[in-house]
Amino acid sequence: MAKNLDPGKWSCPLPLRSYPNVVLGHGSGGQLTADLIQQLFLPAFRNSALEALGDAAVVAAAGLRLAFSTDAYVVRPLVFPGGSLGELAVNGTINDLAVAGARPLFLSAAFLVEEGFPIEQLARLVQRMAAAAREAGVEIVTGDTKVVDKGHGDGCYITTAGIGLVSEGVQLGPQRIEPGDAVILSGPIGDHGIAVLSVREGLEFGARIESDTAALHTLVETILETPGAVRFMRDPTRGGVAAALNEVAAAAGKGIVLEEEKIPVRAEVEAACELLGLDPLTVANEGKLLAVVDPAAAPAILERMRAHPLGRDAQVIGRITAEHPGAVTLRTSIGAARVIPMPVGELLPRIC
Amino acid sequence: MAKNLDPGKWSCPLPLRSYPNVVLGHGSGGQLTADLIQQLFLPAFRNSALEALGDAAVVAAAGLRLAFSTDAYVVRPLVFPGGSLGELAVNGTINDLAVAGARPLFLSAAFLVEEGFPIEQLARLVQRMAAAAREAGVEIVTGDTKVVDKGHGDGCYITTAGIGLVSEGVQLGPQRIEPGDAVILSGPIGDHGIAVLSVREGLEFGARIESDTAALHTLVETILETPGAVRFMRDPTRGGVAAALNEVAAAAGKGIVLEEEKIPVRAEVEAACELLGLDPLTVANEGKLLAVVDPAAAPAILERMRAHPLGRDAQVIGRITAEHPGAVTLRTSIGAARVIPMPVGELLPRIC
Repeated sequence: MAKNLDPGKWSCPLPLRSYPNVVLGHGSGGQLTADLIQQLFLPAFRNSALEALGDAAVVAAAGLRLAFSTDAYVVRPLVFPGGSLGELAVNGTINDLAVAGARPLFLSAAFLVEEGFPIEQLARLVQRMAAAAREAGVEIVTGDTKVVDKGHGDGCYITTAGIGLVSEGVQLGPQRIEPGDAVILSGPIGDHGIAVLSVREGLEFGARIESDTAALHTLVETILETPGAVRFMRDPTRGGVAAALNEVAAAAGKGIVLEEEKIPVRAEVEAACELLGLDPLTVANEGKLLAVVDPAAAPAILERMRAHPLGRDAQVIGRITAEHPGAVTLRTSIGAARVIPMPVGELLPRIC
Repeated sequence: MAKNLDPGKWSCPLPLRSYPNVVLGHGSGGQLTADLIQQLFLPAFRNSALEALGDAAVVAAAGLRLAFSTDAYVVRPLVFPGGSLGELAVNGTINDLAVAGARPLFLSAAFLVEEGFPIEQLARLVQRMAAAAREAGVEIVTGDTKVVDKGHGDGCYITTAGIGLVSEGVQLGPQRIEPGDAVILSGPIGDHGIAVLSVREGLEFGARIESDTAALHTLVETILETPGAVRFMRDPTRGGVAAALNEVAAAAGKGIVLEEEKIPVRAEVEAACELLGLDPLTVANEGKLLAVVDPAAAPAILERMRAHPLGRDAQVIGRITAEHPGAVTLRTSIGAARVIPMPVGELLPRIC
């Protein structure tokens, strides 16, 4: 911290008091990331699209509504059960567009490669990206490659950005969320985080746990068949369902009550989480969807989701409430209730 | 290289024979970058927008022509005379959209920050980005922050992507270039590369040399007032004018003859280049424009460019020829001619 600078009086609204330097938690998608966004990025870049704080920005261009999103992917190891950095970089950005109600069209890809990284490994990542893009029906139309000196990178980082077209009639936003709305989750949680952790830490959990990385836009299409009934969607990646729903609750100014027994978690993921002392609600997913919908339309939406391969285990996991605005509460199977806080720092670094 | 793999027979078209690992030159914007694009990215991602190899892709979305571009910015030091990583990340992507004939509208920004990076430095970069975006009239509408472990980054890298709207009537492409066309350069070259190099190497060149970082889209607007007369544009960044024009010559299948005495270079940049044994034609710029135009319209375009603060020193620096397709030749003031090759590797690493 600079000398003669009194943090208590400083006008630039930074989380300077507690963190003079960036810590891993600032990239965790939890409270520290939210602090950085609220106290640094929003005041500097201030505009309405950014302030909506969606996974993608929705902007108007010559009468069209475009969704625009970017993510940097830094996962280690580069390849893990069920996927790789390549699939994440494609599917992750597609999903950010999809949950904004957009049909993903085009991706860009910027590679930040460390000197000495094997060309063959780069080629494999690129081929996995190409395959994921083909499968999703999205084109990678522009890119860039920069090489940084040995010791100033970590093999390869990939940043993708994506453009999508928001479908007509779709109006999504936390402000549309009403008490009584149903919270739908598309399937079992925690697979991605545990899959990455298992190879990183050399853990064996009996059954092989695979990342759920997948492009969610066709699942989203089934949900948006009744566009008016859908209030808001989000894909619970870093920080898991806990971070995503805390953001939703805060942005909507409403409470969320979850039913623990409704939340699908694979037995092997549950076991791994218990062993590691992790709450599956805070573990990252890369192919799951949260949707807040009109309760009257929930049964039909669930039915359509369950007919889709990525939504077979979809469940209504909770409800929006007028009480406790901003809070996410979990009702356990024995009737107790506990608050699910926003994850503060870094649970599992470099998870996506 | 994997065992049992005969590079001579390998079907995957990689530059494997000469470079099993990534070297700094693969990010230089020169021949090695071109090899990576031609032999790795294009075969994997194959699509018409990417194959056009513009600084931005031009894609169609619901009847609109959008320009879409991305760049990773890794310059060191973070701040240099005349600019910083923040201005480069904004202006560089704006320029890639502008030379595609698009009006830049929206940017995304992905930050890759190393653990331990001072929040204050991050805040300064963000504020410089915000100022550059405001000045250019472009909004930064979406973003992402990832933190990598100490020792796996270099303070802060920024990847931006941008969306622009291609103006009606604008049809740009190397295939539109004809023999006799005029090659216009908007002003003196080499300022950015030499400015960065001077602080990095602690060199003193007498006069202070500042980066030319600037957003070129309003200059491009003056050029596009006669859209039919403009064949192709490019901003000569990494690899300088030499790399940009070699790409143009190769893509157009035409020759380019430059007049040395017409190419503006500041005396102090010229002196620094002589001292360092660099050719100013290969040094990076961040606020210069190359335009290939109908020779009949060149005088009027030059006049409009010179009325713009960023085009005051604009010159016709050469002509397109039918001879020597793919080659860039320089005629010196004493009448000799030399071929300007594509820069091969890394002249100045981490320059943008």
